[in-house]
Amino acid sequence: MAKHRKPEIGIVMGSDSDWSLVKPATETLASFDIAFEVRVISAHRTPDDASDYAKSAARRGIKILMSAAGGAAHLGGVLAAHTTLPVIGIPIKGGALNGMDSLLATLQMPSGIPVATVTLGSAGPVNAGVFAAQILALGRPSLAKKVRAYKQALKRKVRKGDARVQADLAGNT
Amino acid sequence: MAKHRKPEIGIVMGSDSDWSLVKPATETLASFDIAFEVRVISAHRTPDDASDYAKSAARRGIKILMSAAGGAAHLGGVLAAHTTLPVIGIPIKGGALNGMDSLLATLQMPSGIPVATVTLGSAGPVNAGVFAAQILALGRPSLAKKVRAYKQALKRKVRKGDARVQADLAGNT
Amino acid sequence: MAKHRKPEIGIVMGSDSDWSLVKPATETLASFDIAFEVRVISAHRTPDDASDYAKSAARRGIKILMSAAGGAAHLGGVLAAHTTLPVIGIPIKGGALNGMDSLLATLQMPSGIPVATVTLGSAGPVNAGVFAAQILALGRPSLAKKVRAYKQALKRKVRKGDARVQADLAGNT
Amino acid sequence: MAKHRKPEIGIVMGSDSDWSLVKPATETLASFDIAFEVRVISAHRTPDDASDYAKSAARRGIKILMSAAGGAAHLGGVLAAHTTLPVIGIPIKGGALNGMDSLLATLQMPSGIPVATVTLGSAGPVNAGVFAAQILALGRPSLAKKVRAYKQALKRKVRKGDARVQADLAGNT
Amino acid sequence: MAKHRKPEIGIVMGSDSDWSLVKPATETLASFDIAFEVRVISAHRTPDDASDYAKSAARRGIKILMSAAGGAAHLGGVLAAHTTLPVIGIPIKGGALNGMDSLLATLQMPSGIPVATVTLGSAGPVNAGVFAAQILALGRPSLAKKVRAYKQALKRKVRKGDARVQADLAGNT
Amino acid sequence: MAKHRKPEIGIVMGSDSDWSLVKPATETLASFDIAFEVRVISAHRTPDDASDYAKSAARRGIKILMSAAGGAAHLGGVLAAHTTLPVIGIPIKGGALNGMDSLLATLQMPSGIPVATVTLGSAGPVNAGVFAAQILALGRPSLAKKVRAYKQALKRKVRKGDARVQADLAGNT
Amino acid sequence: MAKHRKPEIGIVMGSDSDWSLVKPATETLASFDIAFEVRVISAHRTPDDASDYAKSAARRGIKILMSAAGGAAHLGGVLAAHTTLPVIGIPIKGGALNGMDSLLATLQMPSGIPVATVTLGSAGPVNAGVFAAQILALGRPSLAKKVRAYKQALKRKVRKGDARVQADLAGNT
Amino acid sequence: MAKHRKPEIGIVMGSDSDWSLVKPATETLASFDIAFEVRVISAHRTPDDASDYAKSAARRGIKILMSAAGGAAHLGGVLAAHTTLPVIGIPIKGGALNGMDSLLATLQMPSGIPVATVTLGSAGPVNAGVFAAQILALGRPSLAKKVRAYKQALKRKVRKGDARVQADLAGNT
Repeated sequence: MAKHRKPEIGIVMGSDSDWSLVKPATETLASFDIAFEVRVISAHRTPDDASDYAKSAARRGIKILMSAAGGAAHLGGVLAAHTTLPVIGIPIKGGALNGMDSLLATLQMPSGIPVATVTLGSAGPVNAGVFAAQILALGRPSLAKKVRAYKQALKRKVRKGDARVQADLAGNT
Repeated sequence: MAKHRKPEIGIVMGSDSDWSLVKPATETLASFDIAFEVRVISAHRTPDDASDYAKSAARRGIKILMSAAGGAAHLGGVLAAHTTLPVIGIPIKGGALNGMDSLLATLQMPSGIPVATVTLGSAGPVNAGVFAAQILALGRPSLAKKVRAYKQALKRKVRKGDARVQADLAGNT
Repeated sequence: MAKHRKPEIGIVMGSDSDWSLVKPATETLASFDIAFEVRVISAHRTPDDASDYAKSAARRGIKILMSAAGGAAHLGGVLAAHTTLPVIGIPIKGGALNGMDSLLATLQMPSGIPVATVTLGSAGPVNAGVFAAQILALGRPSLAKKVRAYKQALKRKVRKGDARVQADLAGNT
Repeated sequence: MAKHRKPEIGIVMGSDSDWSLVKPATETLASFDIAFEVRVISAHRTPDDASDYAKSAARRGIKILMSAAGGAAHLGGVLAAHTTLPVIGIPIKGGALNGMDSLLATLQMPSGIPVATVTLGSAGPVNAGVFAAQILALGRPSLAKKVRAYKQALKRKVRKGDARVQADLAGNT
Repeated sequence: MAKHRKPEIGIVMGSDSDWSLVKPATETLASFDIAFEVRVISAHRTPDDASDYAKSAARRGIKILMSAAGGAAHLGGVLAAHTTLPVIGIPIKGGALNGMDSLLATLQMPSGIPVATVTLGSAGPVNAGVFAAQILALGRPSLAKKVRAYKQALKRKVRKGDARVQADLAGNT
Repeated sequence: MAKHRKPEIGIVMGSDSDWSLVKPATETLASFDIAFEVRVISAHRTPDDASDYAKSAARRGIKILMSAAGGAAHLGGVLAAHTTLPVIGIPIKGGALNGMDSLLATLQMPSGIPVATVTLGSAGPVNAGVFAAQILALGRPSLAKKVRAYKQALKRKVRKGDARVQADLAGNT
Repeated sequence: MAKHRKPEIGIVMGSDSDWSLVKPATETLASFDIAFEVRVISAHRTPDDASDYAKSAARRGIKILMSAAGGAAHLGGVLAAHTTLPVIGIPIKGGALNGMDSLLATLQMPSGIPVATVTLGSAGPVNAGVFAAQILALGRPSLAKKVRAYKQALKRKVRKGDARVQADLAGNT
Repeated sequence: MAKHRKPEIGIVMGSDSDWSLVKPATETLASFDIAFEVRVISAHRTPDDASDYAKSAARRGIKILMSAAGGAAHLGGVLAAHTTLPVIGIPIKGGALNGMDSLLATLQMPSGIPVATVTLGSAGPVNAGVFAAQILALGRPSLAKKVRAYKQALKRKVRKGDARVQADLAGNT
């Protein structure tokens, strides 16, 4: 199982209440057989845990960090401040402003400290997983093959959807 | 001079390029004879300085912290994460989104870790100074008197503006 | 009980329909053993009550005012106009614009008359309570201790959340 | 001159810095020979002046109030709170948020206390003047005639613009 | 009954699907004993009906027009284009953009052709009714008295809400 | 049946999950007896299918393309990039941002490559169908007649709505 | 010259002050040798001219209407209300809200009465011209050829831009 | 020189008018001694060039793609559709909507096809360069060292800014 190997991806979320939203990121990584760990660490409530986690990530073998947070979503920024590993930001929709606060707080990082941000909404965690796989695949041909196969599967899914609509239209005649 | 006494207010800005915008906060504090210090510390570029500063502020005699930052403005949140002193957030307008990113990143703090946010725009730094004075005035009658006098001066200024318009209207006859 | 002592915090909401939203502010204050009062006063329907309340607050021993209102949320501004006590604004989400109207009407105060605004959304009333405690704690070591303990409890809660997720991940193996 | 007669329209602006923006409202009223007065009164800096002004307006013969303010534009709301005369709100663009704050703070009044709001932007003060004229014209046939003539003049102006474009197109041949 | 007398207020909505939203405007007018008529006329589907209605309104004794429409809410503008009577715009929330489209399309009228706009949301139709009453009350002392009484009733309602909260707090002791 | 003839309209949606939202476009076309085809092709998952579809559309007799997509709705742009046929964009509401992302991604095409965009919301697919009919009607008098009849039917529907409201008002007496 | 022939395209703008913004639409049409006329007609100031223009357009040989207006941009809707010809809406940026008001007021038409809207910004008038050409090209092979050539020219322009950047990069070595 | 080696990064912009905005990305890469190429390819005007470029990138040795585009910024999406290499999206501010259109069109990619997006504004291109360096540094210790040194330099720059402000404050005494 991916989880038992030494994790390459460190996923951090600000609250365990976001766990169900974040799970698709782990499922995506697992589908690529990429080992990951998941931590609940709050940028504001456990800030030292956050900096410790980010500072130690590289030497523990983590290659990519992901942050998932809502509201004034500082988690990605805190991780990026304390590491030079790539940080992928997953803005969590929720609260009063439909996630626009989370999106801007994740994305609008100052010059020199990027947090590369993925889709606001349910596609976000999946896309964080795929993007991480694309990065790791740069140096790993077997993973690159899986990523290409994943994309082929998406294509087949769309074509099946097309077939369903054609059938529906034909059936309506 | 206010600055030579032991500072009670710690003003932190993310970049010295914001200094001219932040200065009115210091001028406001100085007008109330409140001692302050100003630091340039970045939540993302010097994060350890930020946490050290916030952690040590109370024992150095600081009573209130102010943060001034733009974009994904995490500075207020970082300070609030590392202290239980009141933190006043000054969202800095600028960049691509007219400060809406800064406003939301400063304001939308999670439950339990407030950053009390003041006006986005040129009134913000002044209002941060006034709000800090209002807090300190709670236990200091002489300062309370100054704050009331400040408000009287605002009143006189409006009335002078009224007089100017009346003169203009009369002159137009 | 906190409510039976002379109140230090005056919470004003524009309509009793917001009472359930505002209650967490009172619960937070009560958890810090801070005495408060709660009033329903409308900036627009009972404006004289609002100005009377604000004008008399300081001499009745109130130290901090909180306003909670939605829409064209003038309540914080009306209170701030009639007192030099610190006013904390709680924007109430609701109505057609998801609280963006309330947020801006609370926050965007002119120079010299601040309303320090907390999170739009369910974290707002709690954060108003915590912020008020942080202010009062400046001159009260026993309260400062409680505020620090509150923050420790938040930390423990996050770590418990982390443990739950680790358990969930382990259980999934 | 309109200004020397007993004024029917009371125009209130929050700051004399808005005078040049508000002037087109007075020019529009003057073009309809409607007497007006202009006052600089701040909802936040001279709140008692604002309530006194609104409370006394009707008995001084004022029929319609206009408010012009920016930011957390409470002025219209304060006037409306203290009178049952119609209040026309002119949102002033400016500051960090392009007037969206002013627009929402003017418009989003609670049930029972309307502020009827006109265009955000340079058309606003003119439209406040026209709308006031339309109200007063309900009981005054001579004014109604002027309002209809004003509208005819607008029509002619558009048709002249059309002629200019036709000339330009013909000249380009 | 108000409806049987010659109507003074003409309420136009773009679709009968908005009838339940608009009804509070009629109830408010009825509570002031102001006669009104209600029409379903679409600016886009029955444009000639709209212009005919607006053109003939004044000579049929209508004094004030109200428009209620959503989306690209042109109805107020169409009425205002064809009459010099005051037009009150009620933006209807609904559809994809939460009424922001309706609000801007109603409010942002060009110079010279105002549509005075009321609250977006459930307070809007009520406020349109109150504002119309305020206008008609200018020349009608008995109505002015009713409008003042209405405002007193709002005041009592807020104070009753205050009493309820005090009872709730006392009961919680 | 319209569907059995050689299609003149090619409707492309990015996912078969949008089929129920898009169906009203087909029903509108069918009501005008315009032959159409519907395809599920994703700009991002089956991009070559999208370019092939757009490139071959004209020679297969398609006259107008419609795209229906949400989020970063590139579908209209991809079709427009590969054809010179008119492309009508239907922004699909959904996801985190209420369709504002889809609207802007569909509409904001660069100079020279238009995607003519219709209403965001449930009126959009219908309007895409009507607009396509209006285009085809330019060269087809029998279709032009149907389009005029459609508009008459809309008019009758509004007038029926008016009658319903009059009945409701009369019944309330 | 295109302008001397019987016009096929009727371009209507709300004010001659928009003429310079709208001109690129006419230049685009002229480049395709499509005859057009340009009129200044205001939906609000000359509403009868607007309805007369739209009603008579088809019988005067006009095939497509374009509207260009800002603010509460009702012009497209008024034209669409009075014709069954295709109406292309050009939202004009300007005024307080950067054209978002114009965009929504043009686009958000109700079911059955489309205004197909093009890019907000300087690309809009050009794209209106290109889209009109694409429509007319459906029944006119010589025009279709020109539209394809136009697209080829765009392609060449991009490739020239690429060459310039390559040269710049090479020169920098 | 970095440019003469086989490029690892392929930067694509939609128009050579964005070259000056994009240049900081190349300067950042050059400072890390990472070889890159820059191409002007438009998603809409040269779509086949875009798909060819993306399809061939991997086999030409490109490891990471960057897209820079404004408006309906489809460029990142088009590249991501045709490759499994990581794509970094740089939203270009400009045009009518201050880059919000570009931001959402770049970011809101559907599930499975990520475009990892960096800051909207001048920090964006720099951050794209840094993020690319962070990715490549995963397998290249010498580059990782440079990235850490870059971060140290940022830290020193902030501290110098702090020193400047301290000097300014001291000089003001």
